[in-house]
Amino acid sequence: MTNLVGHTETCPRAAESGPHTLDGLIERRARRQLSEARGSIEPVLRAAVASLADPLDRMAGYHFGWCDADGAEVEAAQGKALRPALTFAAATACGGDLDHAVHAAAAVELLHNFSLVHDDVMDTDAFRHGRPTVWRIWGETNATLLGDALQALALGVLSDGVPERVTSEAVIRLARATVILCRGQYADCAFETRENVTVEEYLSMAAGKTGALLGCACALGALCAGADHRTVSAMHTFGCEIGLVFQLVDDAIDIWGDPALTGKPAHSDLIHRKQSFPVVCALTSNTGAGRELARIYHARQPITAARAARAADLIEEAGGRQRTLGRATAALEAALEALPPEVAAADLTALAHLVAYRDR
Amino acid sequence: MTNLVGHTETCPRAAESGPHTLDGLIERRARRQLSEARGSIEPVLRAAVASLADPLDRMAGYHFGWCDADGAEVEAAQGKALRPALTFAAATACGGDLDHAVHAAAAVELLHNFSLVHDDVMDTDAFRHGRPTVWRIWGETNATLLGDALQALALGVLSDGVPERVTSEAVIRLARATVILCRGQYADCAFETRENVTVEEYLSMAAGKTGALLGCACALGALCAGADHRTVSAMHTFGCEIGLVFQLVDDAIDIWGDPALTGKPAHSDLIHRKQSFPVVCALTSNTGAGRELARIYHARQPITAARAARAADLIEEAGGRQRTLGRATAALEAALEALPPEVAAADLTALAHLVAYRDR
Repeated sequence: MTNLVGHTETCPRAAESGPHTLDGLIERRARRQLSEARGSIEPVLRAAVASLADPLDRMAGYHFGWCDADGAEVEAAQGKALRPALTFAAATACGGDLDHAVHAAAAVELLHNFSLVHDDVMDTDAFRHGRPTVWRIWGETNATLLGDALQALALGVLSDGVPERVTSEAVIRLARATVILCRGQYADCAFETRENVTVEEYLSMAAGKTGALLGCACALGALCAGADHRTVSAMHTFGCEIGLVFQLVDDAIDIWGDPALTGKPAHSDLIHRKQSFPVVCALTSNTGAGRELARIYHARQPITAARAARAADLIEEAGGRQRTLGRATAALEAALEALPPEVAAADLTALAHLVAYRDR
Repeated sequence: MTNLVGHTETCPRAAESGPHTLDGLIERRARRQLSEARGSIEPVLRAAVASLADPLDRMAGYHFGWCDADGAEVEAAQGKALRPALTFAAATACGGDLDHAVHAAAAVELLHNFSLVHDDVMDTDAFRHGRPTVWRIWGETNATLLGDALQALALGVLSDGVPERVTSEAVIRLARATVILCRGQYADCAFETRENVTVEEYLSMAAGKTGALLGCACALGALCAGADHRTVSAMHTFGCEIGLVFQLVDDAIDIWGDPALTGKPAHSDLIHRKQSFPVVCALTSNTGAGRELARIYHARQPITAARAARAADLIEEAGGRQRTLGRATAALEAALEALPPEVAAADLTALAHLVAYRDR
């Protein structure tokens, strides 16, 4: 399982992972974990959101895909629930009772959604799961307030529901992850106005923007299960590395994924001149292809679909695809190696597999 | 001391409170409390801010008045530190060790400043303590991120430093206060596009925007001092009522205060058509003066300084000033009555006095 992301011929997903292969079985297992995690935390999420009072509760319900903008119930697409699934998987790995991890799992999901609501404002993203984003309906001020409230709910739910003996450490961990997440988002925004970003700067940004909360999600699961410090710390490392895999695969999918599967326009990152990992690798490759990419990226004229397609070819030619998949494979290996041999790692590795292999 | 805010002849401050009167002595005591609170929490604040890493730490340092935008040390005007002073005063009232309340005091100050940084973005306020606001220097996105990080720091500092036995309740209380604060800020923003706001709606908004955190500040002080539930709850009530006094006096000062003392332009609320308490009282007074005020407030043309001065007269004529000071006096009475007879209330009452009597 050390070469999951190494399929350099196609997009990261292994073309051969049909429903009856080992990969297919692992994927099904992981998808069941996501679905169960979503179901388990929903009552806690709904109770927390109800405490917001109108209209913040309605805005949150809309964002979570429970209702339309007027509050009428709908069945809209929802988030994957990867973070709460990681919390439960880490608790399971440490022999914990899942009931003790429900509030921690709900807390990381609330925290994740605080960051999504604010990121949508900052990045002026118009759609999420195919629906207009919160700020587009209620305005930037109210979206900011909703995000603020979701962050507070996350910490409140955590403190209210994790086993008393770990409350302090759990809150400190989630608060610290939030600060690191803000730093990562700061760096990501700052990259947009910079011509050159180093590989190290990118990795530090991704560790903040994606790694910190996934690491925290795993650490909290272990903490709620009563694991010792060494194990909690190992779980944190596992989650941080999985976060890096997640971000790298995300970057690769934008360029080489199938828009029909992702539901997003092709080469969106390239058109927006994002400093994604393949781009950073190509721009710093000191190759002819890298220099041509730099001319496209730094030119004043807009990057059209045709120029983005050319950029994608140049990135591949400059080694950007290979380095991205190589780095993702290394992170996946580091994640799996971080797991202590005595933990029951099947759920965690299934989720790791899903993160690495996903095609959307 | 039941009529502190009842000086309807002048601005809320009693003209006769010279340095040698009883009022003057109480005021000096309160100002010393503020200054000591600021000094006590500063090391905790600075350590927390240092963990943000550049440039968020620099942005925070600038906001707190410690440095300029480039990070060079300066001596700029700082916040009053009313909330941490209330935390310490509540701890003192309950016989607690002040060292046990330092993190709680720092946490409420961090939380308060999270809300200030975000409010400045939402209200597009250009200056705070005479310096450009954070968003004007670093942009709205980065100011939003700084606020997000300050909220997380607040909860982290609280969890890291309050006595272990009260961590869970302390975090739940601060998180809940944050949610209520967001609701209050939501209502305050929503009032701007509404013609009519009821007195009850105003009071609910002020209870959220100002009362919740002052109530929490007092409750946390009592909690850290090991007070019982009844006392913690009484302290919370005291703080909430003081928060209402604070907001009502703020509203009165905007209209009848001395711009030379406040440092703000006269009638700023009126020029911005804010639904402050005196305005709400006048608009709902069903008097001729109230109706004339409504015509000024709802007209399309800008409210000039001259029209604002006329509006101020109309508000007074419609009874807005008297009702505001009356409601503030009632809130002050309710605050003082909430204090259990057995607590050592001198510090708390001195701060209450300062809040009610302040002229800026």
